[in-house]
Amino acid sequence: MGNEPAHTVTRYDQELDRLRGLVARMGGLVERQTAQAIAAVVDQDEDAALEPPELDVEVDALEREAESLAIRILALRAPMAVDLRVIIAVLKITGDFERIGDYASSIARRALKVEPLDGALSFGALRNMARLVQENLHSAIEAMVNNDSECAMQVWGSDTAIDELYTAMFRELVTYMMEDPRKIGPCIHLLFVAKNLERIGDHATNIAERVYYAVTGEMLPALRPRGGAAKKGS
Amino acid sequence: MGNEPAHTVTRYDQELDRLRGLVARMGGLVERQTAQAIAAVVDQDEDAALEPPELDVEVDALEREAESLAIRILALRAPMAVDLRVIIAVLKITGDFERIGDYASSIARRALKVEPLDGALSFGALRNMARLVQENLHSAIEAMVNNDSECAMQVWGSDTAIDELYTAMFRELVTYMMEDPRKIGPCIHLLFVAKNLERIGDHATNIAERVYYAVTGEMLPALRPRGGAAKKGS
Repeated sequence: MGNEPAHTVTRYDQELDRLRGLVARMGGLVERQTAQAIAAVVDQDEDAALEPPELDVEVDALEREAESLAIRILALRAPMAVDLRVIIAVLKITGDFERIGDYASSIARRALKVEPLDGALSFGALRNMARLVQENLHSAIEAMVNNDSECAMQVWGSDTAIDELYTAMFRELVTYMMEDPRKIGPCIHLLFVAKNLERIGDHATNIAERVYYAVTGEMLPALRPRGGAAKKGS
Repeated sequence: MGNEPAHTVTRYDQELDRLRGLVARMGGLVERQTAQAIAAVVDQDEDAALEPPELDVEVDALEREAESLAIRILALRAPMAVDLRVIIAVLKITGDFERIGDYASSIARRALKVEPLDGALSFGALRNMARLVQENLHSAIEAMVNNDSECAMQVWGSDTAIDELYTAMFRELVTYMMEDPRKIGPCIHLLFVAKNLERIGDHATNIAERVYYAVTGEMLPALRPRGGAAKKGS
């Protein structure tokens, strides 16, 4: 395909740019969903709680649009090497974004079932977890947008702290429930909120792995550094 | 590429077959992981509990192998139409399988933390849920292996019952915890087991959606039938 007229190559570049734009928009949306979901919980903000499930429709639509465009580019342009890897990464990353959107919506739907639970204690831990997860998600998206393998590598190595915060929070909340059975319902919702946050962090790590591979052509090791032994997917 | 010698076309078919074989093997493995994880919980079987995390390594390796092969086929063969859609579906489905393996491993790791909880009550509900999820997963894999859009459509419409069982179980377990705070720990693990099972069901539905699209070229509607309003991802 190397001898095609220049306008075709330009059009191909435009298509790739459009694909990148679609995925960047998806990234922005799921960041927004995550931020609003967290605000809904820690500030008990009813308006914020409504937003993530609403945005889900847009995220799903963007996923379909990006997937259709990627297939069209693959079929018509037969891209090679880095371009091909980037398109494959896009197809996988849109799946990660879609799951992140689901988890954020799930958090938002639980937000108002989580009563203040006597205040600072657990929301403090949750705020810390949320901050780390949001930072990782943001960095993963930046790495994707800028094809930055260094940045991707950093995200990939940094979800240990998130896992540790989750484990500490789990223990704390169980103790709390045992002391006061009336708090069981809200505590369970808060546990699921924390678990969903942790999974958003997992997907940020997945995105970082895919960006790293797309940019370098090398895969990161199968076993990433984690908090505690073999905690993956727990 | 239509005028290549016949032996090249044959080789292309062999590559596609190999790709299908890899994904079918992945499907078999995650079915096994799911079955063993459930056995670990409901039979309190320590040996069964060890298997899913062990198989995870194989599942991850197969995912990487399938992905590399898919990229090679895309780069060298520039497949069109159904072949192209099937390869894209494979790339997405391996991601679903990988997540299913994670969830099964997570269930297995919690299995022995779930004490019998006075027997039949909750394990009964869990067994029903597990049966439906396993049926859906099996049908989704069958649909994939046989390019069967009818079968895919059936899976897609049938996870409502799973969601309803999960919701009932959630309520039951909360009541149970309130009656006896010593059961809180085990009950929480059982809740997470049920949630993970429900998510395996979600991924079976995703797989069905992707098979349907690959085979027919049509996407199923964005909103699938669910138990309860807007329960997606909760």
